[in-house]
Amino acid sequence: MAQSWENPRQEPETGGADEYARSGVDIAAGNDAVARYRQILGEWRHPDQLDAIGGFAGLMRLPGDRERALAASTDGVGTKVLIAAELGRYAAVGADLVNHCVNDILVLNATPLFFLDYLAVGKLDPAVAAEVVRGCAEACRRHGCALLGGETAEMPGLYAPGHFDLAGTIVGLVEIADLPRSDSVEPGDAIVGLPAVGLHTNGYSLARSLIPAQSWRERFDGGTYADALLAEHPSYSQAVRAIERVARVKAMAHITGGGLLENVPRTLSENVKAVFDQERWNVPPIQRELVARGRLGHEERYRVFNMGIGYTLVVSDADAAKAVAAAPGARVVGRIEARTPWEPRVVIESARDA
Amino acid sequence: MAQSWENPRQEPETGGADEYARSGVDIAAGNDAVARYRQILGEWRHPDQLDAIGGFAGLMRLPGDRERALAASTDGVGTKVLIAAELGRYAAVGADLVNHCVNDILVLNATPLFFLDYLAVGKLDPAVAAEVVRGCAEACRRHGCALLGGETAEMPGLYAPGHFDLAGTIVGLVEIADLPRSDSVEPGDAIVGLPAVGLHTNGYSLARSLIPAQSWRERFDGGTYADALLAEHPSYSQAVRAIERVARVKAMAHITGGGLLENVPRTLSENVKAVFDQERWNVPPIQRELVARGRLGHEERYRVFNMGIGYTLVVSDADAAKAVAAAPGARVVGRIEARTPWEPRVVIESARDA
Repeated sequence: MAQSWENPRQEPETGGADEYARSGVDIAAGNDAVARYRQILGEWRHPDQLDAIGGFAGLMRLPGDRERALAASTDGVGTKVLIAAELGRYAAVGADLVNHCVNDILVLNATPLFFLDYLAVGKLDPAVAAEVVRGCAEACRRHGCALLGGETAEMPGLYAPGHFDLAGTIVGLVEIADLPRSDSVEPGDAIVGLPAVGLHTNGYSLARSLIPAQSWRERFDGGTYADALLAEHPSYSQAVRAIERVARVKAMAHITGGGLLENVPRTLSENVKAVFDQERWNVPPIQRELVARGRLGHEERYRVFNMGIGYTLVVSDADAAKAVAAAPGARVVGRIEARTPWEPRVVIESARDA
Repeated sequence: MAQSWENPRQEPETGGADEYARSGVDIAAGNDAVARYRQILGEWRHPDQLDAIGGFAGLMRLPGDRERALAASTDGVGTKVLIAAELGRYAAVGADLVNHCVNDILVLNATPLFFLDYLAVGKLDPAVAAEVVRGCAEACRRHGCALLGGETAEMPGLYAPGHFDLAGTIVGLVEIADLPRSDSVEPGDAIVGLPAVGLHTNGYSLARSLIPAQSWRERFDGGTYADALLAEHPSYSQAVRAIERVARVKAMAHITGGGLLENVPRTLSENVKAVFDQERWNVPPIQRELVARGRLGHEERYRVFNMGIGYTLVVSDADAAKAVAAAPGARVVGRIEARTPWEPRVVIESARDA
């Protein structure tokens, strides 16, 4: 889970159900850890620290600057690295990581300044390490973001030969006046969804248990399972900036671990709910395959996987058509409704499930 | 190695010699990776990125601010985590990590703003994770540094049960006018050393091969080997600020992987050399033990271990006495001399080796 102390996000250990626990990930332990972190962090807080709505990133006032704040987020790519390592495809996970981090601070409207990577290996293969870093460097460059440094650690005994872990930290700048104001979200607003491309960087423990390694090179959906599983986590930076030019965006969410069910409410107040209409977008083939293989229930599938929506934006209904026209693939996928305290914060309506 | 692209530092895989290679760490591969990183990073550089002398941290001009820059560094604690995990001492590695990062940006005179941690585990134990985060939080608080967030990832299949990895990123602020000017270092200047407490966070692959796990609970030097091996990596922030109040500091170095031999030259020009006099300080018992057990040669011991000096500052000879008086344990440990191109950049004079 991201220790974005306001509203912690659970990275791959999130999930709702038995299936995910069977993949080796313990949800109760995750919730317990988060509660402990909150207590520790509650004991002292830097006076310049700001509430970062949704907790996708941390936010700190820039000393001596009344108008700007720094947003920062650390993330990893989870056990997607195990698939990348098995198949020898390394550059893609570097880009996955940078794009994931970019999206996390984009939720606060922050523009990336710089990124640092952390690559840990059991046995250092310079060509592999360079490919990972190249993936990071190219994704950074696409965002005008400096790759300011990083750390490569060779740790025999901690990682098996061929295994590696990859994490990174992004720092961006945001005008305090530009921070999204979720209190402006109101019933009748539209939820615009941006399309996901594969699983992004979440749900891989479950995905690996449902599609085992010996199947990865088999044909699937015009390519292989490997292609589908390693599809690059996209950056939503361009799409969001394009939408912001034509519409006032009230709240955003990056759909990571916890899916639509957990990520969308993070930036909404308690008196509204997000109602999605599954008929309005297509679930990508890899998610459909995983749902079928694991016989995943409605709740579980929407909690562990993004189910085809990678990023959401709330705009007024009047702005919705302009917003959708501004970014390729964007569509209205739901609406904001009033919520009473005993109602769920997210509802996903799906005729096919009925 | 830190990808502090100017002058990369090699984290535990640095070392000079056969013994370290036997511990599973490949120096040639490390150098190869660094060369590849440099090439990748040479292809594009953000215009606001500044040369960060010594490469202990990255440095970037703060947009819209002519006077200030952000310094950032990502680091890990290496295989010290394997000892901490074996012995169930978790909080200390959190402090190790924060202090290590603080020292890395201190070399640029930067003051910490915020820190984010990355904790990766095979099986999440909430009490253990909280202890690690508590160690980070307390060390952050001692530096007035916000613990702005982080990521805890449970990754079954990548880490063995009980194993974990810990890395972190620090971001600090520095007035550009306060950046150390190594071109002001000249022959006759004094090198002030601040005492190390144990191995800090480097050389643990070799240390674990020389002092195996079954010995860690044995008595050593008034405690146990475990106590000596897990001694906290200190922060030099207070000592350095105290010295800066009474002396003009020309250059600094944090003695991490690569030891005095590799870290001190990082902030010096090519026309000077650092000459250390080993008679001026005591090598701590744990380092003496490791040198004896591994029969480590002169070069190797000073490259893999800090040998008792954790941080160095170059001051004019006239300032040396004031500097030493300002910080507990500080002492003059060497001097700057003119260097011709064929001479080594660091010389360690040691009567006992003769």
